[in-house]
Amino acid sequence: MTKDVEVAERGGEYSAKDYHDPPPAPLIDPEELTQWSFYRALIAEFIATLLFLYITVLTVIGYKSQTDPLKNADQCGGVGVLGIAWAFGGMIFVLVYCTAGISGGHINPAVTFGLFLARKVSLIRAVLYMVAQCLGAICGVGLVKAFQKSLYTKYGGGANELALGYNKGTGLGAEIIGTFVLVYTVFSATDPKRNARDSHVPVLAPLPIGFAVFMVHLATIPITGTGINPARSFGAAVIYNQTKAWDDQWLFWVGPFIGAAIAAFYHQYILRAAAIRALGSFRSNA
Amino acid sequence: MTKDVEVAERGGEYSAKDYHDPPPAPLIDPEELTQWSFYRALIAEFIATLLFLYITVLTVIGYKSQTDPLKNADQCGGVGVLGIAWAFGGMIFVLVYCTAGISGGHINPAVTFGLFLARKVSLIRAVLYMVAQCLGAICGVGLVKAFQKSLYTKYGGGANELALGYNKGTGLGAEIIGTFVLVYTVFSATDPKRNARDSHVPVLAPLPIGFAVFMVHLATIPITGTGINPARSFGAAVIYNQTKAWDDQWLFWVGPFIGAAIAAFYHQYILRAAAIRALGSFRSNA
Amino acid sequence: MTKDVEVAERGGEYSAKDYHDPPPAPLIDPEELTQWSFYRALIAEFIATLLFLYITVLTVIGYKSQTDPLKNADQCGGVGVLGIAWAFGGMIFVLVYCTAGISGGHINPAVTFGLFLARKVSLIRAVLYMVAQCLGAICGVGLVKAFQKSLYTKYGGGANELALGYNKGTGLGAEIIGTFVLVYTVFSATDPKRNARDSHVPVLAPLPIGFAVFMVHLATIPITGTGINPARSFGAAVIYNQTKAWDDQWLFWVGPFIGAAIAAFYHQYILRAAAIRALGSFRSNA
Amino acid sequence: MTKDVEVAERGGEYSAKDYHDPPPAPLIDPEELTQWSFYRALIAEFIATLLFLYITVLTVIGYKSQTDPLKNADQCGGVGVLGIAWAFGGMIFVLVYCTAGISGGHINPAVTFGLFLARKVSLIRAVLYMVAQCLGAICGVGLVKAFQKSLYTKYGGGANELALGYNKGTGLGAEIIGTFVLVYTVFSATDPKRNARDSHVPVLAPLPIGFAVFMVHLATIPITGTGINPARSFGAAVIYNQTKAWDDQWLFWVGPFIGAAIAAFYHQYILRAAAIRALGSFRSNA
Repeated sequence: MTKDVEVAERGGEYSAKDYHDPPPAPLIDPEELTQWSFYRALIAEFIATLLFLYITVLTVIGYKSQTDPLKNADQCGGVGVLGIAWAFGGMIFVLVYCTAGISGGHINPAVTFGLFLARKVSLIRAVLYMVAQCLGAICGVGLVKAFQKSLYTKYGGGANELALGYNKGTGLGAEIIGTFVLVYTVFSATDPKRNARDSHVPVLAPLPIGFAVFMVHLATIPITGTGINPARSFGAAVIYNQTKAWDDQWLFWVGPFIGAAIAAFYHQYILRAAAIRALGSFRSNA
Repeated sequence: MTKDVEVAERGGEYSAKDYHDPPPAPLIDPEELTQWSFYRALIAEFIATLLFLYITVLTVIGYKSQTDPLKNADQCGGVGVLGIAWAFGGMIFVLVYCTAGISGGHINPAVTFGLFLARKVSLIRAVLYMVAQCLGAICGVGLVKAFQKSLYTKYGGGANELALGYNKGTGLGAEIIGTFVLVYTVFSATDPKRNARDSHVPVLAPLPIGFAVFMVHLATIPITGTGINPARSFGAAVIYNQTKAWDDQWLFWVGPFIGAAIAAFYHQYILRAAAIRALGSFRSNA
Repeated sequence: MTKDVEVAERGGEYSAKDYHDPPPAPLIDPEELTQWSFYRALIAEFIATLLFLYITVLTVIGYKSQTDPLKNADQCGGVGVLGIAWAFGGMIFVLVYCTAGISGGHINPAVTFGLFLARKVSLIRAVLYMVAQCLGAICGVGLVKAFQKSLYTKYGGGANELALGYNKGTGLGAEIIGTFVLVYTVFSATDPKRNARDSHVPVLAPLPIGFAVFMVHLATIPITGTGINPARSFGAAVIYNQTKAWDDQWLFWVGPFIGAAIAAFYHQYILRAAAIRALGSFRSNA
Repeated sequence: MTKDVEVAERGGEYSAKDYHDPPPAPLIDPEELTQWSFYRALIAEFIATLLFLYITVLTVIGYKSQTDPLKNADQCGGVGVLGIAWAFGGMIFVLVYCTAGISGGHINPAVTFGLFLARKVSLIRAVLYMVAQCLGAICGVGLVKAFQKSLYTKYGGGANELALGYNKGTGLGAEIIGTFVLVYTVFSATDPKRNARDSHVPVLAPLPIGFAVFMVHLATIPITGTGINPARSFGAAVIYNQTKAWDDQWLFWVGPFIGAAIAAFYHQYILRAAAIRALGSFRSNA
């Protein structure tokens, strides 16, 4: 908690020594397309998003089925909203842990978009990741429907919809801030400058990312069901395919992309001080 | 989250430097049988599976007893399905942490089977581990029954059974995908290539493995009670010994073994690119 | 758990080798004010406290709305008091992880006060941090009110108030001990002497700090709603703006500041043995 | 998970290189008594056990108060049994993290007894630790009673008692196995041999110890309320001071001490192979 002080003490010694910023990723990198590791990353994103949606939507359907007052006297029989929030956050923790070394562990078009804006992935990688994520989400929700078709349709298909009594502005705001929390955590976890100095940063990385997802679900499930992941909202909407889910779908793309953009801006221009460095108006020790 | 980029940058420098794949384990290694460390590993697997079943089945019985509407007005008195999922996942975290250095921390025949397929353990070790795990599970559930015989039988003995309203295909699918999630996480945590590069991989290892178990329980307790561990299902069936549990028993062996095999295939041939490397058709940087 | 023994063995070898105490921070450090990193730290504290209040108060309001017996038959529909405690503790974990390298990750005037007493931050930094934290808290709660004004006012605005049936002494005591638990954990996590020796200390640091907040909420939500963070209590009171919340407000400043002062004293004079070292009356190996 | 294989490969190279067993602690070490660090450790154990009991018993009383059907319509209003289990496990995680470098972080006479049997602490240290822990527990529970006397007495004072319908043998067995799980985890976390090899062992150490406590509470709260810590049971009995709590008190000393002794035996003679090494009958690679 006093890292800043220590760093200030030892001052400029660090500059350009214990870390280096990788150069910005090119918009289109033709060489990338010739490497197996690129296709492997796409497969890993596809499988991870599939597993993410499969486990989480199954948890949602199981919860709603078990606490249905018409069917079951035991209203506390399910895992609860807390259990649903754990399912989303915990799966992101597990899957980021498993895929970080293969694909970077995005599993979310908003994360990919934020990292693209910060020039950490190329345009072509960003677009193909999003396609892989959306296809994976569709397949994951499709599996849940195939397993239990009647329950799936009866209990809302895990689709994101704006809850009754909230207006569109609130829903959009909730998605923007929720995605900001997630993408800000992702940037903090992957900042090469911090990795070099704070030993807790690289080691714990997947855990706070999962917790950020868990926290946002606790707060916004009552409002939008919590998207903050366009692939998750899109996959559920494709398989559920009801008017309300499609009508609100734009919220779950526009909100997360705005939130991710603000997080990328906040990290690059405020915390990394790119703007100030350019202006040269302060004596910066960063 | 941009590890892939970094790795691509520094390219081939790494090859065969900062890690080495251990040679495939032999099918039968006679020397293994002469070492105390081998028998110690069998004891550790036995004790760990015993403790795993003891704690988790006790939690299940306690929950069902406390929320029985005929007996107790306070239907929310127990730990909830969320608490049961924590018991399974949390115990795996603790026991993998404790036994990883002694036996590798399998505690599950499906994990042993997956690691055998990937040639990480010998055939003889795999078979004897599974025997030790099943004996441990029987003893663990036996302890629970000895402690509270009437409650144990009344509340289903913690046995895995397909829930009413689900067909066998769904149950099998749920076990296959659930075990895939677990064994995929185990492979990710023990990949010598990743250990060398990503500092979060070896340090956190037991935690995401435990979380994977937790997540799968949240999702599939309503369907099969969640096996994904043949020793757990077998031990409960032996002690509970009712027709239904035995009739469904095959599901909890076939499902997990198929899931583990797919995870081993996915890790070895897709993520590690063993197939592609053999074909030599891409310029691989792996 | 036997670290003490090991340390005793290797005795004096360590002294002044593997760590050094940074010199006490000056009361006023004019140079600090010329550095961009100082203003960046203020922004980071502002944003972190804003996100902290936004997520947690939204969770509180959502829970109270969903379990309102007049409105909803499903009394177990919300995340529960356990979910609320997770929201506070989990957000602190995530935000300390994200901001530790930028601002030290205080997000709480009581933490700032404790670190100021231990001379780890300058007076001017401490005061400006507290201002940034209080402004952030007001904005965070303001966002929640803007999103759902009627629910916000109806369900108490997330404001800290002494519960019915508890006297002021109990409330003050609960706040003092609760803040002591938190600030003691913060000191343990940031002790340069321990960082050098115990490898778990710097790596896990944000996690036990978050858990300390989680634990204190489990224990004292029924008494005061749990403050242990004057910015959190102040921000909620400003936006909620009801007599009862203002009448009890002093509790949530005096209690946390006393608790933080005791923790600073305990850490500096007992655990670090500053007093004894001065007296020289024992042969200390510290 | 295949650590054993790797270790076998590299074989004897390790012996006596990357770790060393500290010599057994003497029964009585007069020099210890002259060091400030020894008294500091006693103070740390006292404070930690005080905080442990304060937070956990407050959580228990708050839960029972909020879910009292005579008083409150909202039966799901409390943190649940799951929340209580988290309080015990989470506090142990936080306090072991904070005190490991000062006193070894025992906070439990059964842990101290196990480490004494393994000759990791001297007799005099073990006895004085237990005294400090019991005094701390009494003060912690006393604080809870002082804060809310009527609730404290009405809701059972957090005292450990054998639940209705269980015989003494079951209660004793539950305490023995529960303490075995905890002390076995403590030994695994502090084994100098494993610390040197498995990077996850020292870094995560406080977390699985806390989780072990969490798990045992999930399983045995319905049977004994879960002791596995004689100081916790003794402190609650002293302050609650009712016949039933005193009649069952022996269970919460005999059970944990037997469990700790079995764990010490299992670790030293089976896993560390001390017996076999003495016999020399196997070619051991340990």
